[in-house]
Amino acid sequence: MPDLSSFEFNVVYNLLSLTVATMGAATLFFFFAPRVNRKYKAAMVVTGLVTAIACYHYFQIRISFGDAFALNEAGTYAATGKPFNDFYRYADWLLTVPLLMVELIAVMALTKAETAKYLRILIPAVLIMIVLGYPGENAIATGGSAAAIWGWFVASMIPFCIVLAVLFTQLSAAIEKQPAEARGLINFARIVVLVTWAFYPLAYVIGALGSGGESGMSTTAVVGLQVGYTIADITAKAGFGVVIYLIARKKSEIEGLDEDVKAVPAAA
Amino acid sequence: MPDLSSFEFNVVYNLLSLTVATMGAATLFFFFAPRVNRKYKAAMVVTGLVTAIACYHYFQIRISFGDAFALNEAGTYAATGKPFNDFYRYADWLLTVPLLMVELIAVMALTKAETAKYLRILIPAVLIMIVLGYPGENAIATGGSAAAIWGWFVASMIPFCIVLAVLFTQLSAAIEKQPAEARGLINFARIVVLVTWAFYPLAYVIGALGSGGESGMSTTAVVGLQVGYTIADITAKAGFGVVIYLIARKKSEIEGLDEDVKAVPAAA
Repeated sequence: MPDLSSFEFNVVYNLLSLTVATMGAATLFFFFAPRVNRKYKAAMVVTGLVTAIACYHYFQIRISFGDAFALNEAGTYAATGKPFNDFYRYADWLLTVPLLMVELIAVMALTKAETAKYLRILIPAVLIMIVLGYPGENAIATGGSAAAIWGWFVASMIPFCIVLAVLFTQLSAAIEKQPAEARGLINFARIVVLVTWAFYPLAYVIGALGSGGESGMSTTAVVGLQVGYTIADITAKAGFGVVIYLIARKKSEIEGLDEDVKAVPAAA
Repeated sequence: MPDLSSFEFNVVYNLLSLTVATMGAATLFFFFAPRVNRKYKAAMVVTGLVTAIACYHYFQIRISFGDAFALNEAGTYAATGKPFNDFYRYADWLLTVPLLMVELIAVMALTKAETAKYLRILIPAVLIMIVLGYPGENAIATGGSAAAIWGWFVASMIPFCIVLAVLFTQLSAAIEKQPAEARGLINFARIVVLVTWAFYPLAYVIGALGSGGESGMSTTAVVGLQVGYTIADITAKAGFGVVIYLIARKKSEIEGLDEDVKAVPAAA
């Protein structure tokens, strides 16, 4: 790890803390999920699990980032030699990304057979994507070869493209059967996946370009990678969760609210 | 404790952290338990207690493991002399393993007399099994004699075999009375107990074979023991819990869903 200026250190450290608060609050909101019928509670619980798991990991990432640097007399943050643990992000993704697929499919309330059909492709694909990304990430952090950095990148992008292909081709038929008023939102959820997930390879590329071989990562690479992944996680988990919530709420309205949620005012 | 390479240390440390997140998320899921009738809520609450207790202990185990080693200038993790507290695992098992027996019997929804009949044997047996295992584990960690290591192992395996005997002979009559559609899953739950519980003596044997007497444990023994026990705990607690959840859900469907859970979609 290179030394960071006070500004660089604080941008990352404070953003990590902001993310802990965001994920924690998002979790509580998704668990309460006002104005949503019981039918969609399972989708909302899974949505809340995703942000709960992310909240834990951002808490750990913040601590690990803080331990990796120490303020010195010049007012800059020098690397302590204690490695920043980038596995927290991958541990987080291993658990949350399959759940993101589950929440997207669950909120559509398809038949068991259809649900199983999509998840049987999507879950293994995202797991393979994450597992293939980690050695590359590790190569960036430890000054590995360009072949390793870009080889794992390309390998990981294959399942990434498969996921997008399933969402934008196969899933279209299922979306057509959704109520007309909810179709726009579900389409929007697909686009949110496309756009927010694009942040991850982008952050990886920023990290890779600044990896600097033997001399370790540049400060731009460190800050760019952390800020990029963090913004991607907020939008792909809390932001995507809000879209899932809006779908669940819209579909609840269309189908008629359950007795026990009817009394909640529309403005809430 | 022997010195560990950076890779060896990180495998254990990161797996411990992943387990904290897994157990925490599993707890929330079991407490919500969508699409499960009130009749089975008790079984699901107990299932969530097991993973909640494990979440706490893995948090402590991770801290204790981190404190037992310090990164040195050569980039390896040297033992600090601060002992790794392996009692956390046994404390965890003392609380959770009896509860695992309760959740298996509870989800079958037997008569009170039958429930009591099984738990009166299973709970003392698992407690004796754990109590007898601890001195052996301690002998492994402190370079005890082979007689101690293997003597306690054999002693602990006796109640272990009694539990399996009860599950695979006595319990069979009760399983026969379960609804046909749920019988397969309950049989599967028994097999999950058999297979996941087999990991524990296996991890013990890996630890024992690498205990190295006076010179302490080998690195293979340390890493093998921790990874083995952790994978065993994830499958025996979170994995087993998912099977219990599926049984509760299937039985709820067969018996007709309660009004308040009826609206949750089958696909979710």
